[in-house]
Amino acid sequence: MAFLAIIFTVSVSPFYGRSIHGVPFATVEVEEISGSQPAEVLNLVQGKWKNTNRWNTILDPLNGEPFIRVCEVDETGIQPFVESLSKCPKHGLHNPFKAPERYLMLGDISAKAGHMLSLPKVSDFFTRLIQRVAPKSYQQASGEVYVTQKFLENFSSDQVRFLARSFGVPGNHLGQQSHGFRWPYGPVAIITPFNFPLEIPVLQLMGALYMGNKPVLKVDSKVSIVMEQMMRLLHYCGLPTEDVDFINSDGQTMNKLLLEGNPQMTLFTGSSRVADKLAGDLKGRVKLEDAGFDWKILGPDVHEEDYVAWVCDQDAYACSGQKCSAQSMLFIHENWSKTSLLSKMKDLAERRNLEDLTIGPVLTFTTEAMLEHKNKLLQIPGSKVLFGGEPLTNHSIPPVYGAIEPTAIFVPLEEILKDKNYELVTREIFGPFQEVIGNTVNGTTYAGLRARTTGAPQNHWFGPAGDPRGAGIGTPEAIKLVWSCHREIIYDVGPVPKQWQTPPST
Amino acid sequence: MAFLAIIFTVSVSPFYGRSIHGVPFATVEVEEISGSQPAEVLNLVQGKWKNTNRWNTILDPLNGEPFIRVCEVDETGIQPFVESLSKCPKHGLHNPFKAPERYLMLGDISAKAGHMLSLPKVSDFFTRLIQRVAPKSYQQASGEVYVTQKFLENFSSDQVRFLARSFGVPGNHLGQQSHGFRWPYGPVAIITPFNFPLEIPVLQLMGALYMGNKPVLKVDSKVSIVMEQMMRLLHYCGLPTEDVDFINSDGQTMNKLLLEGNPQMTLFTGSSRVADKLAGDLKGRVKLEDAGFDWKILGPDVHEEDYVAWVCDQDAYACSGQKCSAQSMLFIHENWSKTSLLSKMKDLAERRNLEDLTIGPVLTFTTEAMLEHKNKLLQIPGSKVLFGGEPLTNHSIPPVYGAIEPTAIFVPLEEILKDKNYELVTREIFGPFQEVIGNTVNGTTYAGLRARTTGAPQNHWFGPAGDPRGAGIGTPEAIKLVWSCHREIIYDVGPVPKQWQTPPST
Amino acid sequence: MAFLAIIFTVSVSPFYGRSIHGVPFATVEVEEISGSQPAEVLNLVQGKWKNTNRWNTILDPLNGEPFIRVCEVDETGIQPFVESLSKCPKHGLHNPFKAPERYLMLGDISAKAGHMLSLPKVSDFFTRLIQRVAPKSYQQASGEVYVTQKFLENFSSDQVRFLARSFGVPGNHLGQQSHGFRWPYGPVAIITPFNFPLEIPVLQLMGALYMGNKPVLKVDSKVSIVMEQMMRLLHYCGLPTEDVDFINSDGQTMNKLLLEGNPQMTLFTGSSRVADKLAGDLKGRVKLEDAGFDWKILGPDVHEEDYVAWVCDQDAYACSGQKCSAQSMLFIHENWSKTSLLSKMKDLAERRNLEDLTIGPVLTFTTEAMLEHKNKLLQIPGSKVLFGGEPLTNHSIPPVYGAIEPTAIFVPLEEILKDKNYELVTREIFGPFQEVIGNTVNGTTYAGLRARTTGAPQNHWFGPAGDPRGAGIGTPEAIKLVWSCHREIIYDVGPVPKQWQTPPST
Amino acid sequence: MAFLAIIFTVSVSPFYGRSIHGVPFATVEVEEISGSQPAEVLNLVQGKWKNTNRWNTILDPLNGEPFIRVCEVDETGIQPFVESLSKCPKHGLHNPFKAPERYLMLGDISAKAGHMLSLPKVSDFFTRLIQRVAPKSYQQASGEVYVTQKFLENFSSDQVRFLARSFGVPGNHLGQQSHGFRWPYGPVAIITPFNFPLEIPVLQLMGALYMGNKPVLKVDSKVSIVMEQMMRLLHYCGLPTEDVDFINSDGQTMNKLLLEGNPQMTLFTGSSRVADKLAGDLKGRVKLEDAGFDWKILGPDVHEEDYVAWVCDQDAYACSGQKCSAQSMLFIHENWSKTSLLSKMKDLAERRNLEDLTIGPVLTFTTEAMLEHKNKLLQIPGSKVLFGGEPLTNHSIPPVYGAIEPTAIFVPLEEILKDKNYELVTREIFGPFQEVIGNTVNGTTYAGLRARTTGAPQNHWFGPAGDPRGAGIGTPEAIKLVWSCHREIIYDVGPVPKQWQTPPST
Repeated sequence: MAFLAIIFTVSVSPFYGRSIHGVPFATVEVEEISGSQPAEVLNLVQGKWKNTNRWNTILDPLNGEPFIRVCEVDETGIQPFVESLSKCPKHGLHNPFKAPERYLMLGDISAKAGHMLSLPKVSDFFTRLIQRVAPKSYQQASGEVYVTQKFLENFSSDQVRFLARSFGVPGNHLGQQSHGFRWPYGPVAIITPFNFPLEIPVLQLMGALYMGNKPVLKVDSKVSIVMEQMMRLLHYCGLPTEDVDFINSDGQTMNKLLLEGNPQMTLFTGSSRVADKLAGDLKGRVKLEDAGFDWKILGPDVHEEDYVAWVCDQDAYACSGQKCSAQSMLFIHENWSKTSLLSKMKDLAERRNLEDLTIGPVLTFTTEAMLEHKNKLLQIPGSKVLFGGEPLTNHSIPPVYGAIEPTAIFVPLEEILKDKNYELVTREIFGPFQEVIGNTVNGTTYAGLRARTTGAPQNHWFGPAGDPRGAGIGTPEAIKLVWSCHREIIYDVGPVPKQWQTPPST
Repeated sequence: MAFLAIIFTVSVSPFYGRSIHGVPFATVEVEEISGSQPAEVLNLVQGKWKNTNRWNTILDPLNGEPFIRVCEVDETGIQPFVESLSKCPKHGLHNPFKAPERYLMLGDISAKAGHMLSLPKVSDFFTRLIQRVAPKSYQQASGEVYVTQKFLENFSSDQVRFLARSFGVPGNHLGQQSHGFRWPYGPVAIITPFNFPLEIPVLQLMGALYMGNKPVLKVDSKVSIVMEQMMRLLHYCGLPTEDVDFINSDGQTMNKLLLEGNPQMTLFTGSSRVADKLAGDLKGRVKLEDAGFDWKILGPDVHEEDYVAWVCDQDAYACSGQKCSAQSMLFIHENWSKTSLLSKMKDLAERRNLEDLTIGPVLTFTTEAMLEHKNKLLQIPGSKVLFGGEPLTNHSIPPVYGAIEPTAIFVPLEEILKDKNYELVTREIFGPFQEVIGNTVNGTTYAGLRARTTGAPQNHWFGPAGDPRGAGIGTPEAIKLVWSCHREIIYDVGPVPKQWQTPPST
Repeated sequence: MAFLAIIFTVSVSPFYGRSIHGVPFATVEVEEISGSQPAEVLNLVQGKWKNTNRWNTILDPLNGEPFIRVCEVDETGIQPFVESLSKCPKHGLHNPFKAPERYLMLGDISAKAGHMLSLPKVSDFFTRLIQRVAPKSYQQASGEVYVTQKFLENFSSDQVRFLARSFGVPGNHLGQQSHGFRWPYGPVAIITPFNFPLEIPVLQLMGALYMGNKPVLKVDSKVSIVMEQMMRLLHYCGLPTEDVDFINSDGQTMNKLLLEGNPQMTLFTGSSRVADKLAGDLKGRVKLEDAGFDWKILGPDVHEEDYVAWVCDQDAYACSGQKCSAQSMLFIHENWSKTSLLSKMKDLAERRNLEDLTIGPVLTFTTEAMLEHKNKLLQIPGSKVLFGGEPLTNHSIPPVYGAIEPTAIFVPLEEILKDKNYELVTREIFGPFQEVIGNTVNGTTYAGLRARTTGAPQNHWFGPAGDPRGAGIGTPEAIKLVWSCHREIIYDVGPVPKQWQTPPST
Repeated sequence: MAFLAIIFTVSVSPFYGRSIHGVPFATVEVEEISGSQPAEVLNLVQGKWKNTNRWNTILDPLNGEPFIRVCEVDETGIQPFVESLSKCPKHGLHNPFKAPERYLMLGDISAKAGHMLSLPKVSDFFTRLIQRVAPKSYQQASGEVYVTQKFLENFSSDQVRFLARSFGVPGNHLGQQSHGFRWPYGPVAIITPFNFPLEIPVLQLMGALYMGNKPVLKVDSKVSIVMEQMMRLLHYCGLPTEDVDFINSDGQTMNKLLLEGNPQMTLFTGSSRVADKLAGDLKGRVKLEDAGFDWKILGPDVHEEDYVAWVCDQDAYACSGQKCSAQSMLFIHENWSKTSLLSKMKDLAERRNLEDLTIGPVLTFTTEAMLEHKNKLLQIPGSKVLFGGEPLTNHSIPPVYGAIEPTAIFVPLEEILKDKNYELVTREIFGPFQEVIGNTVNGTTYAGLRARTTGAPQNHWFGPAGDPRGAGIGTPEAIKLVWSCHREIIYDVGPVPKQWQTPPST
């Protein structure tokens, strides 16, 4: 369409001259990244892209080639990041009384960035880049880009300042009113995992910015190239380069940065173990979205068997079971066991293949570890492999990653309830692995015949329930709760009543 | 187990204790509490009032007599409290789907309890009881009862369930809707300080109950008799005795209870030092309202001098400076220094006296400690005593408490900004002590000519800003943010579209 | 209980000395009202109770005695009411910027009045008074008092000012914010019908007052004695007598008052015919809650037959079918017709009797008119009487009112859909009369197995849907939508940017 | 029927019309519209563009040439529009339970249309088209396009469904919850004036669509070409052609359509006189945004004189005083009269000229009528012309329109308060005409040093206050209040309590 051309005739961005295949901000060419032409990922601090002389080499998860070099900051290099955090006051880069034009600027950036992601070339660029580092099917990777686009569109124009909506209540006497505001924390940190390289960091980063914070962002180095390119898109759409710092490092370095830089709040998405350590280290100044251990329950009413089998297959094995919302346990009422549900699930699991990445490498568990887990489960009396359970074959996935068939293990309900088995069965395996039992629900819950999980969508709250540190992502409620706090100002402007006289002390 | 031997069930009915002078629930007679007739404070667990054989004796802050015996639980006695917490599931005593009639019950209890506190005899009973343990003027103590009454009235009838208001958003297709609910944490703990023996525990306790939690409540033993009597009033108004546990103990025991009982959330109101320790120990599962270090700034416009002097006097010295909101620093523009403001403040401070408790004992600092702090401040070049600074005389306040005149020390602004002095000057002295300098504002802020602080009122948010763990108190917003979390349920009830066919895997 | 006595020892109200049987504000003795000792109902204007020399005599609906004399204003007497309206400015008696202490005063009045209605003597007084003029069972009349009590408790303390909650949004530049307020209309009118003599006028009146309006209230003269006594209770609880005018008159006079007094808004609850006329006369400055024509649909799933029969009986015949929500049509799936549902409904209808007023006089239709309607329905092919259909016997209900058995007429669905029958079948008969067919739902809708109608409760919206003039009643949403409008104020306090220069004209 | 004969289907595709100079949806070329090549404006009904054989010729306001032919429907032609309205049920095209995917579709259309208007070619197209029919400066016309763009961006993606956010409240017992929804009206009508040919109709039209209504839209024929082209843009962005009907007609025909088509609600923006007539005719089923008579008050503090003069000039004379928010009266404290404010205002007024349309034709008053008004004002003792007051010269504005200099008349405050003058002085003259007096404020209010009016922006409520029929425009609050109503559904799904037994009748 004619009008699309207009976007690209914008005079080139002040920051990045190279337009690669019509993607004006990009500094990499997705298909060309390889062992012989490795891509490089830089750090951004105080408005400048920087490299260090410490390179972390990432192996291509599909063939083991060293295809990305990530420039990582070590403990000696955190000072510029500490300084950058300290430049942002506790009242933030903006708040309802300070620099309100920034709310509008961020609304414009969101509209532009949302439009950019709606362009087929740009959407395709990020989809394929995601596939390179977090192998999943084109449709799954593209879904992540789509949710990110929709999220950005949601906060176009005035919608950022609408997030900062305050309320007022009449006071006790003439001249008094109390007002409640959404206030930023100021300097903050964001730490996000490998499984959604674009969506999780963008949604949390923009939420933090919208409310007036200045974030330092760290994405798992295995996939941080995606967000590094996205930062360039955001700059291209008008985001000042000083507003966000982007760091690559190991966990220990990041921990040191948090302790020295002392961000007012740290958002962590990742494993419960690290989450708990961080909460202690940072004295609770955290919001956490840890990986869920997710259940599905099929009740006594049997109908729409094909549909249900398909949903189970997708919920368990899409993204090779590495979604936050991946179904790990399935409870089925005995009525379902008399149907062909399980055999249909088996058929569906077996049509998955490496070629189109409907099954792919597991980035946080090795094949060996998953097989060991399987074997332990099989020692529970009555348990058995329903399908899968074998390593993938004919592939070049490097051994640091896992490669296993979509797998389901049956465990009898009476066994799972025994203390000695409970911990084993409920161990989080972030991979294409589910156990057919169940008990109850928690956090975001999907109910009804068509219920199916999603990966943190932009339109409804997605996050844990029951934890005072729990974070949501992407919705107006999540952004306000996670990225701002309440501040109350009571205006009491007078007049002092006529004939007022000093009363007795109290 | 040993601890069973030392806990006895009180024989009096939990609902209709002795009616003392027309106060039907009370078990003490305020004026008769004395060294010769000490009052006793019990613990409440699993619906029963219990005593132990470990008594903590409280000295009358005005004459040093051992006038209250608090039955304290030690580490061997926490088991019943741990069990009681564990009886409440994580989804709470009620939630929007469970036992909704409890919202109505709590609305009725609030209306009745609010009405009880509106009765002169009952209001007077609590006012005088507060004065016995936290000496302040009748008007100040009565103000605390009044705020508590107004708070309870606020949540009469349906207003408790209105707190649990959910929201829904249309879904993606026929049959889908997403709903966000306010969900309880389940078992929770509340720890409150000495300065507001009635208001702080009632507002937090009821907030916790409203949202569906089961709290264990610990109030500073020096003043816990007030809340012990209030629990009896609440039972009298219909609160089931099993809904709240009430414990007296030292901090170490409470810490153990928190670690073993593992409440989903702990609300702590008190010193920043303890707050930070708790946040670490409990891995951030806390909400904190720590004592503020509060500032007042008088800008260049001089008018209504009498009014301003009076507000400064009240804000600094009411309740002997032991309000959360007590003004600790006063910055005055030089225009004010040319007026009689300071001399008027001196006159107002000097009319305060022990007789009507417009000045009284300081419960957390000794006289000696406060004088030492004064002397350190006076070593700063240019600093001087504006008024006060001497120990109170002609009194029988026991030496474990403090007794000092309303005091103001002048410190030059240029000195306060020096690093070496900053920590000293900003040391929190919870007493009638202020330093005349200032810098900025934070947390709940009062602005305008008639601006004055209050002690945590029921009508506007009162609490810190800028801390992700920060708690508010008493308002609908505070109750919802502190005492509940978001839970999202997506209904997706179908139908499955006609002609639906299993799509390819992704 | 001791504390109740305290309320009554309050020094007698400035307005009314007589305490009748312990009901301190009342000027009538319910059981003594009779032809020989008729009660009198006055008007209230500009703070004074007034009578005129024009008396409208009301017949006792149970025996025809002239038992109440209502002092009615005619067209020559409206001037003081017009003047009184004109004394209230368009910005109301209060608003978020004006007299905010009135929000608190109304919160206190509500708490007190709610407590008064919770006292058995007072509740009993109003219950029996309602029974005298709008005969219904004690339980139904008492339910009306209870809802009124709960409503008043809902708006205790700060909840009135919380209704006036405003919102603010950051502006375009430093110093600008936009704020949206709930603003009163100023002078307003309220017209309410006979069927809920206490609940409808109190809920709308208080809603109007809460938001800052000054209402003139007119209740159907047949029952206005109830609200006249309630006005005295409100005054007793602290409502200034000038805040509400109370008028008795015929419709023509009221119409004249509206045209001359020109209230900014008129709330009308009553028949659709009058509603439409008023809407035209007042050029749409109305909110309407017209009588519904209510349907119930029983789908194909048959269960809990006893429960369903009971709900149908109550929904159709409680208050002799004169609730706004009374079920007028019942659609039953053929599965139900094979059950004993209809015979059970017949049994339940037949146990109703005049003695306990589970059936009673119909105040707006004569017996003759209802029988004529029945006969017209029976001319539809296939229609028949299921039960009832005969005049009541052995009673002294005067002929101006109706007296008919609980009645159900079956009409075939295919007939009801014919144009010529549709209007006949859907004619509103405000009496114990239902037609067994149905089509669809609208307005407040009750869904599910336990679904049953209520008469305008205080806890959820009750009112029509789909009409831009539609009013709700009693909930925070209803009060805000009906009794206030949006007002926006944009603060833009500067500063003017440095180096600002006059730009070209546009 | 006759009317069929005179309506022809346009052959061009509704989606891809001629692409004119890169504006893909447009069917006119702005600069080529002239007496010799008049543009044509069609009607849209039931998804088809139609013409009639009745053409209304519009004169070019700058030179009097007959430059646009508007195809108008007369009373014989309304039947297809009546039918089209009747095709939409009262529960709308969508609601939270019906076709929720339409909320998403409208979010996408808004994002796309917002992006289209952000393209320089498209923005320029509409800006120049507006200038042709409602002559104002390029900047003013462009501002209208910009606000429309920002509004559309605001409701991108999920923001349309977020407008339909519902709320729920826990019920009385297990299984009960009450939910409040925003419900559409179904068939509705929109009538908008000449002064903002794009912004007012787009904002109201989209608001109506968002909430689920089906609108018929009528824009003043003098300017309807703008909205006719915009309809084509919306279709191009995906709006189904059946969703909106677009009609050109005189007022009498539209009145007939409203009475026969019986839309559930009619939004009218225009003169108070027509508004009142419509409100009566439609029995109040209207929402009104009538032209304001706007005041500005300058208080005693004099500063920023240049800025204030400039704001006064812009507020009074931009768009030749034909904004809804145009300042018609200016009150100045005597302190300002001692300054050069008035002389500066005179200078600013005098630099306005026809060439760049900083002054232009007045579309609703003739020159003669405005001069007559001036002369009447000058008969008030003490009144005088401050500047302006003469007809424009050297122009070809046709005599059906007005052409007058920016004019200010001084009227003494004491005279304006006299009854006989009040009506004269406050007569609305929609033109570059202001009277220097004042009294109070109302409706949307701008306060503070930088306060200035805007023309109905998209970010804050703009509309009257104090009228129950009052409409706002463009903000989430306005859309929800104007274009939807409350509907309550109480779910009460059981179970019936065990051991339930039929209770006595009541």
